[in-house]
Amino acid sequence: MSATPAFHGVIPPVVTPRSTDGEIDRKGLERVVRHLIDGGVHGLFMLGSSAETPYMSDDERSTVVELTAEIVNGAVPVIVGANDQTGVRVAEEARRMTRLGADAVVASSPYYVITNQNEILDHFRMVRDAVDVPVFAYNVPVRTHIPLGADLLAQLAHEGAIVGVKDSSNDDVAFRQLALATRDVAGFSLFTGHEVVCDGAMLSGADGIVPGLGNVDPSGYVRLYEAAAAGDWEAARREQDRLVDLFTIVGCPDSNRVSGGAAGLGAFKTALVELGVISSNTMSKPMAALNENEAASIRTILERTGLL
Amino acid sequence: MSATPAFHGVIPPVVTPRSTDGEIDRKGLERVVRHLIDGGVHGLFMLGSSAETPYMSDDERSTVVELTAEIVNGAVPVIVGANDQTGVRVAEEARRMTRLGADAVVASSPYYVITNQNEILDHFRMVRDAVDVPVFAYNVPVRTHIPLGADLLAQLAHEGAIVGVKDSSNDDVAFRQLALATRDVAGFSLFTGHEVVCDGAMLSGADGIVPGLGNVDPSGYVRLYEAAAAGDWEAARREQDRLVDLFTIVGCPDSNRVSGGAAGLGAFKTALVELGVISSNTMSKPMAALNENEAASIRTILERTGLL
Amino acid sequence: MSATPAFHGVIPPVVTPRSTDGEIDRKGLERVVRHLIDGGVHGLFMLGSSAETPYMSDDERSTVVELTAEIVNGAVPVIVGANDQTGVRVAEEARRMTRLGADAVVASSPYYVITNQNEILDHFRMVRDAVDVPVFAYNVPVRTHIPLGADLLAQLAHEGAIVGVKDSSNDDVAFRQLALATRDVAGFSLFTGHEVVCDGAMLSGADGIVPGLGNVDPSGYVRLYEAAAAGDWEAARREQDRLVDLFTIVGCPDSNRVSGGAAGLGAFKTALVELGVISSNTMSKPMAALNENEAASIRTILERTGLL
Amino acid sequence: MSATPAFHGVIPPVVTPRSTDGEIDRKGLERVVRHLIDGGVHGLFMLGSSAETPYMSDDERSTVVELTAEIVNGAVPVIVGANDQTGVRVAEEARRMTRLGADAVVASSPYYVITNQNEILDHFRMVRDAVDVPVFAYNVPVRTHIPLGADLLAQLAHEGAIVGVKDSSNDDVAFRQLALATRDVAGFSLFTGHEVVCDGAMLSGADGIVPGLGNVDPSGYVRLYEAAAAGDWEAARREQDRLVDLFTIVGCPDSNRVSGGAAGLGAFKTALVELGVISSNTMSKPMAALNENEAASIRTILERTGLL
Repeated sequence: MSATPAFHGVIPPVVTPRSTDGEIDRKGLERVVRHLIDGGVHGLFMLGSSAETPYMSDDERSTVVELTAEIVNGAVPVIVGANDQTGVRVAEEARRMTRLGADAVVASSPYYVITNQNEILDHFRMVRDAVDVPVFAYNVPVRTHIPLGADLLAQLAHEGAIVGVKDSSNDDVAFRQLALATRDVAGFSLFTGHEVVCDGAMLSGADGIVPGLGNVDPSGYVRLYEAAAAGDWEAARREQDRLVDLFTIVGCPDSNRVSGGAAGLGAFKTALVELGVISSNTMSKPMAALNENEAASIRTILERTGLL
Repeated sequence: MSATPAFHGVIPPVVTPRSTDGEIDRKGLERVVRHLIDGGVHGLFMLGSSAETPYMSDDERSTVVELTAEIVNGAVPVIVGANDQTGVRVAEEARRMTRLGADAVVASSPYYVITNQNEILDHFRMVRDAVDVPVFAYNVPVRTHIPLGADLLAQLAHEGAIVGVKDSSNDDVAFRQLALATRDVAGFSLFTGHEVVCDGAMLSGADGIVPGLGNVDPSGYVRLYEAAAAGDWEAARREQDRLVDLFTIVGCPDSNRVSGGAAGLGAFKTALVELGVISSNTMSKPMAALNENEAASIRTILERTGLL
Repeated sequence: MSATPAFHGVIPPVVTPRSTDGEIDRKGLERVVRHLIDGGVHGLFMLGSSAETPYMSDDERSTVVELTAEIVNGAVPVIVGANDQTGVRVAEEARRMTRLGADAVVASSPYYVITNQNEILDHFRMVRDAVDVPVFAYNVPVRTHIPLGADLLAQLAHEGAIVGVKDSSNDDVAFRQLALATRDVAGFSLFTGHEVVCDGAMLSGADGIVPGLGNVDPSGYVRLYEAAAAGDWEAARREQDRLVDLFTIVGCPDSNRVSGGAAGLGAFKTALVELGVISSNTMSKPMAALNENEAASIRTILERTGLL
Repeated sequence: MSATPAFHGVIPPVVTPRSTDGEIDRKGLERVVRHLIDGGVHGLFMLGSSAETPYMSDDERSTVVELTAEIVNGAVPVIVGANDQTGVRVAEEARRMTRLGADAVVASSPYYVITNQNEILDHFRMVRDAVDVPVFAYNVPVRTHIPLGADLLAQLAHEGAIVGVKDSSNDDVAFRQLALATRDVAGFSLFTGHEVVCDGAMLSGADGIVPGLGNVDPSGYVRLYEAAAAGDWEAARREQDRLVDLFTIVGCPDSNRVSGGAAGLGAFKTALVELGVISSNTMSKPMAALNENEAASIRTILERTGLL
């Protein structure tokens, strides 16, 4: 890791607010975006998992990206997920997102397929060939069930098919190996998608942080990032430990009622309601929203961690 | 299992031929469809896994369904996969497929999501509410990584959200339990998607067979089905054993070169070339086509099993 | 499948009764064994998963095998599990079991290790070399997390390292392929370990059935086996369907309290108490026994299926 | 993390040298132990995964522990794995290891069983009740396929059933959560079992490091530990990055020939041969030893990282 790459810092995966009628809440989205920019974030990641993207129609995806590009108006880079099953379809989606204003696109591995390493390499090359903006690989085996190994990602980095990786693999061993294997790739950006080990990820060589919890406490993550970037690891750790505590909001939903996917995102949205940023914690269908009991537990944690 | 349900018998998941230039081979598709109907099949399943659907653009999907509906012209029912990540998107795709001529649609569980049983129930209800044609559930955990349990499917069957199940779960225990649990649902259709245990599946209560290998030998599967339906289990078993041998064509591709997904489908296409039904075994990008060596091994098996 | 192999028919994996004080219930074991032999079974499988073997000390394992060999006294073959992590340890256990009276031993794949196909082949060869009695392979990926593929098992069969397979893989596709691949191995025995698809397994070529539920209804399984062996598949299916219904006893335990492992075995033991065969449904520590509510549900099912 | 707990620092999982005839190499074991103690390690972990424990007979396990206790003679604590399937068997093994000289014992979750959280809690309580020495929990889902969650481990820590955790879960998120959840448990020791993220683990709150690679370069890990313990994170990172490079020796074996398990351990043994510590890289049966080509690659890495 030599010079800071173009894409770096805190780049939260932005949630998608919905009104109580289930529609995209355009006003709410604007308020979330301003909340994040005011918090000092270095970029925005739209249509990631935190956005409930799998549950959005094509039209809804367009609305969110168009609106965000308009609000941000170049203040920070806007990175956009191009989420579909395989190369040909991701390429199409990536072109669409670029037209709508994406400064870079993010593609996961293929999914719903039985594939191999060669096909995965070609998958990313197909996306790169389809657009003029930089392409990030998104490693999220908990969703794709196809982990992207450090060797494969390093190869894509070296051949210029990808300019960075967003890692949500929960595999810190492979993350460190990837960091070392891409050290000599100028401008390459390595992001962690995990909320609770950002200090360790930066010690391992991460250039950026993409925390869903960053929707709730953007300035906390910015402080963490800046402390680590300045080599003040004790300060980074203290901030991280506070954010680990804040992250316990994702454990508040009743797991008999709320799915694993809805629990985390629902907790972020509920916290944003409690903080007065948005007006409803409505989820995309068919996910259940958090109830008042669950919101009360979240309130306690927001207070304990200094946000309320 | 009392009266034969509306959807029953041999309903192969039709492959999607491509010309050497990679485009949908419309003439080839017509020839495959006629080959199947001449073979006596009871229906066609379009845009299943065997069609390489995850690798097709929306336009290609439309082309295939429209063209097939036109060729078939009501001779047999045409069931069409509505393949996307979650309820809202599957519903949209299901509506599109219905407009293009689908007599029924098939939806898998959600995928690329972290979900729970309640959300999965609602997922299928959303699809059912979106269309006027019957909805089948497709249980394919090797792709979705979310198995649909017998209890959940039986509940959907009883409440009328689905009219049948295509099972590719490779779980014959759950299959038998589902067969018994849906016995009292009038008109419910239980299909196995496995090529090599159709006799056992019918003994367990299957109403139909959806074998990818049926593209290659439709009459073989029709004989198997009719023998089993008539209670001649020894004849069914003999036919099945021959088809198990034929199925070894999927082991011919070199696994260092060809992915697991491409191996089976590539073998079906290559066999169809050898049988003179289509002119090219080209695969959707980025999957590798089988080479001449692999085709030669397949030829040997086609000869051994009486097809050449 | 030509001549009937030496090991064939219904060979239940015998449960291990415990007194309320947690000790092996020698009297109870004798009564279970007599119940099974009176039911017409063709052999006994001791120290299988149904015996709670992983939870037994070495001394308890010895006691059970010695006592059983004494009771059976040659009336039927006694097959014994030699359960340990790897070849050298399984070989030692297999020698011990042989000295205690085993007519054959059963070895799973290695487990708790990160292995490959060559090591697995050698694993079984090490066991075969250690004993004079025949060796069975036990395919139980739900426990070992290492499936034994049809190719590997067929190779072991052809080279004489194993004389049979007990399959609990829940993979009927691989089962059929294995049946065909071992057809030409004289005396080879293929057993299914699944309770609810024995008719289909026999249609696929199984020589025997190793159903945990056979502890509860040995004569039912003997009727099923004999009908299938005689080619009366409709009778086999009817008996199987009744046994599928009986098998719902494993769903009676409260899954918030009783583990998946304890639920099935606890249900078998509880049914045996209800049938008057044993006096306590005590489980090995730390597994929970079923309570009176759960026993009442089981009673209803025993009545419905004609056992009470 | 307040005061340094009794068990802390670098505690390598010691390899088990074998002579070319396959027997335990007593002289070699002594030399490895002295190599480690001379390297400054703070303790030894015997009969861990690096010891090839699953492939050792009971007698071999005894030999290794007895001999080590004798060599070490109290110089550093000797922690010993008590490896078996379930509580009753692990308790027996733990008692045996304590008699042979273990200062503490290490128990994994149960394995080869289908269990639940209550049974796992009782599993560890059974071990604790069986011995007078402290008990560590070993979290190694890649082997057991049963992860030990942070909540469960924290509960065991708070009730005193365990005094520490050796974590090989490759889940740095849960690791951080566990570190925070056990912060208030006096004397509790959290160890990471991963070679390449020890700096990050210590930043997260680890008290110790149990690296298999520590057999090869004990002083490197001691430097890393001491730098991190002193808060010099940049120095810790530099040392760690060198050790990540050294760790690439585990990628030298040909994966078509050598299993995943044998590759890492074989690389450690081969490096020890190259360093002149032991005389043979023989593996436990049926694992393959590394060959001369593979040893040559390892030599290059040892030179590059300053060990040769």
